[in-house]
Amino acid sequence: MSVTELFETSGVADDADLQFSADGHLRHLLTLRGLNRRQITDLLDRAETFLSRPGQAAVRSQALKGVTVGNLFFEPSTRTRASFELAATRLGADLLNLDVNTSARKKGESILDTIYTLQAMQIDVFVIRDASAGVPAYIARNVNDYVMILNAGEASVSHPTQGLLDLMTIRQHKGNFEDLTVAIVGDIAHSRVARSASEGLMIMGVGELRLISPEALAPDPDDFPGASILHRLKEGIRGADVVMALRIQRERIGSLDGIPGIDEYFANFGISHERMKLAAADAIVMHPGPMNRGIEIESSLADSQCSVITDQVTNGVAIRMAVLSTVVETMERQ
Amino acid sequence: MSVTELFETSGVADDADLQFSADGHLRHLLTLRGLNRRQITDLLDRAETFLSRPGQAAVRSQALKGVTVGNLFFEPSTRTRASFELAATRLGADLLNLDVNTSARKKGESILDTIYTLQAMQIDVFVIRDASAGVPAYIARNVNDYVMILNAGEASVSHPTQGLLDLMTIRQHKGNFEDLTVAIVGDIAHSRVARSASEGLMIMGVGELRLISPEALAPDPDDFPGASILHRLKEGIRGADVVMALRIQRERIGSLDGIPGIDEYFANFGISHERMKLAAADAIVMHPGPMNRGIEIESSLADSQCSVITDQVTNGVAIRMAVLSTVVETMERQ
Amino acid sequence: MSVTELFETSGVADDADLQFSADGHLRHLLTLRGLNRRQITDLLDRAETFLSRPGQAAVRSQALKGVTVGNLFFEPSTRTRASFELAATRLGADLLNLDVNTSARKKGESILDTIYTLQAMQIDVFVIRDASAGVPAYIARNVNDYVMILNAGEASVSHPTQGLLDLMTIRQHKGNFEDLTVAIVGDIAHSRVARSASEGLMIMGVGELRLISPEALAPDPDDFPGASILHRLKEGIRGADVVMALRIQRERIGSLDGIPGIDEYFANFGISHERMKLAAADAIVMHPGPMNRGIEIESSLADSQCSVITDQVTNGVAIRMAVLSTVVETMERQ
Repeated sequence: MSVTELFETSGVADDADLQFSADGHLRHLLTLRGLNRRQITDLLDRAETFLSRPGQAAVRSQALKGVTVGNLFFEPSTRTRASFELAATRLGADLLNLDVNTSARKKGESILDTIYTLQAMQIDVFVIRDASAGVPAYIARNVNDYVMILNAGEASVSHPTQGLLDLMTIRQHKGNFEDLTVAIVGDIAHSRVARSASEGLMIMGVGELRLISPEALAPDPDDFPGASILHRLKEGIRGADVVMALRIQRERIGSLDGIPGIDEYFANFGISHERMKLAAADAIVMHPGPMNRGIEIESSLADSQCSVITDQVTNGVAIRMAVLSTVVETMERQ
Repeated sequence: MSVTELFETSGVADDADLQFSADGHLRHLLTLRGLNRRQITDLLDRAETFLSRPGQAAVRSQALKGVTVGNLFFEPSTRTRASFELAATRLGADLLNLDVNTSARKKGESILDTIYTLQAMQIDVFVIRDASAGVPAYIARNVNDYVMILNAGEASVSHPTQGLLDLMTIRQHKGNFEDLTVAIVGDIAHSRVARSASEGLMIMGVGELRLISPEALAPDPDDFPGASILHRLKEGIRGADVVMALRIQRERIGSLDGIPGIDEYFANFGISHERMKLAAADAIVMHPGPMNRGIEIESSLADSQCSVITDQVTNGVAIRMAVLSTVVETMERQ
Repeated sequence: MSVTELFETSGVADDADLQFSADGHLRHLLTLRGLNRRQITDLLDRAETFLSRPGQAAVRSQALKGVTVGNLFFEPSTRTRASFELAATRLGADLLNLDVNTSARKKGESILDTIYTLQAMQIDVFVIRDASAGVPAYIARNVNDYVMILNAGEASVSHPTQGLLDLMTIRQHKGNFEDLTVAIVGDIAHSRVARSASEGLMIMGVGELRLISPEALAPDPDDFPGASILHRLKEGIRGADVVMALRIQRERIGSLDGIPGIDEYFANFGISHERMKLAAADAIVMHPGPMNRGIEIESSLADSQCSVITDQVTNGVAIRMAVLSTVVETMERQ
């Protein structure tokens, strides 16, 4: 059975269960599926304790003293890699950046042998980004009993720390989820950000979730149970409390039937001041970054009062500190 | 207005002023212009306290404990990047190397959005090298109130920490500046090293400053007020107390009318033992590195008693420690 | 005299002597040649103190506090670079990864000028991997009195920390060396792993050492005094207590007369359960990694009880901690 086949046979329910220790504590973070409202609330509450006020020093602790965190990014990333690195460092961990371009993979070593090698060096937590679906769970299923796996972006499937930082940002500005209408706009079909945000919002009991995309970029409805799938921005944004623009990959624009060119994309799916007039009066605008200003979001809107985009970034470090300290506590409890 | 236009409209006087806090302390280091003799002397004096004797441990402190320094190099660099990294680490800072090759820039994010993202992660000091003029000042003008920008090399315009380490090295060997004749030799037109050294030397009241280059590589005289621009090495080196050879980029040699080939370059502009006989008896030889031995400098001269090239490197770490601790003090004072 | 010529004139005996301080302590680690049984035993004993039990925190100390270690890898490496980085960090050193792809070498700087620059920044220990024979010794011969050089892989010549971790792993499982038959299998001609392991085993007084390879990949017998050179795996593996499979570079397979293709290679030189029946009943299987499963080693054998491959990796960090702390003690003693 090839590695690819192994990935494909990994069951969905299994992946969600896999992340808990025998006594029910979070040990890996692979997906938000399987977490309950209490567990997510605990992570958000903990993350709040890692925020400092503007101009004050970043919060630090020694909670991860003696722990080694390995950053293993098989896709390029600045923001997520840096966010995890800062989170680990500010908790007192040793941080190892594994440069995958010069790695053993070039020499034909399997990803699992790379992990076996690194865990034998007593790397305790692996932060993994990979373009193939199933890799984080596959690794989690095969590591030894002392290792923790954090998913930092998995194909178009999952990006759970992004989902958590989105929830944290929404909660900060809106207080709850039950009364909210959330609109996610863009390339839903290929977006791990949309998937993890939707999973998190459903668990937290969001009032209404709308996914708006060009028809060619619409998701399989089975992937987003409970959400409405729409193709007209006006309809989707009307009355929304939260509007989240997704990054559109430039190489996708105009590449397929039904996917418009840049100007058309902005005209039909770009979030602008004008369009936001349809949303709730105190609606907030979110974007996972990096932004294509003028394509999926009007540039001045991204810098306006209703934008919470930099809050998302700040919360991202706090969420990763919360996740890291939570899984390390689970391990120490054993 | 495009980013390029923004860069170009940045006024010179403005850039120099921009680097001070409201109460006149150094907050960013963008250029030596605008610093006065007292401020430079303070930086050199402080840098001296960060030197240890040969064979003794490097000086360390915890002055930057809790501070995060981000190295953002958009041009390749070993020595300057390593020098800043060691300086930050030896002051107890957290250091984040931002690998620009795998960065968001690839994904089309603007440099300012990259900075906004990183400052939202509470990176406190950005060390920036960029091939475009105006980038450090442009960033300094746009960051939030808690961020400091250090220019680690900007196009052919400015390299202020290099200028400071050159001043420090000269002062160590010569004691003062007023009585000195300094000759800078090479590709003056394209040299940020020459520009920052000249600015610093003028502020410190150097006796005489001579810039010697092939005619095709001569600078605009307006860029170097007070310096004499010469084209014959013999004339320029005669009686000089300090001779600074600049690196010539190999791709420039022989590429233009008036720029000689390698052998011709060495014959006409290479600093050699023979040529140094024209200089003052106790003259010192400097080079910013990396050296092209046998092109701009005779190899054995670089290793001789009169060479202070490794002193420059050692002083470089001390200068960067002095600059880092100075700007962080400015921020803490606010 | 060119750099290449300098490398070539470096005498073998000289390299071995070079690594000791005037009073006979280990200052550089360039090769296992020249170390005696006492010195190797001391390193292995010290390395044992850096091991922790599974699930326990990695051993840490502050023995290298205030020391700066520079990783200078001119060949790609994940495992060795990470192993040295973890070893240095867990001893409290500052670690600088020098990214050679963006380094001064591109700008034409000689390796020695790079080292001179970095030692002027008070980097105390250089960990060097290079594809050219003689580079570590050449550097050791030219650095200042306060710098230590550790060879992390040198052409096909030497990989002394790998040799030590192999000895450590064998000693853990077999207790002594005198009664052992060790078989090393694969591309002996091009293997620095085989060379360093053989040197170490000879010093430790191994009972019998057999080197088994295709004829086209057999070594010069003068390079392996005391070893028997064989070309049939059955003959070589019979009764062996230790079987070490070497990595075969894929580009070599089938490329030369006398070198078989993949299937043929596995059939003739691959270590399998079936073949291990010829070895001693309690024989162990080793591999330096990264493995080509199914080529030089049967995949299931690598994961079986007799495999000590992950022990080798764990021991690698401990050996590097032992070597680092030993050479730093030598320096402090002076």
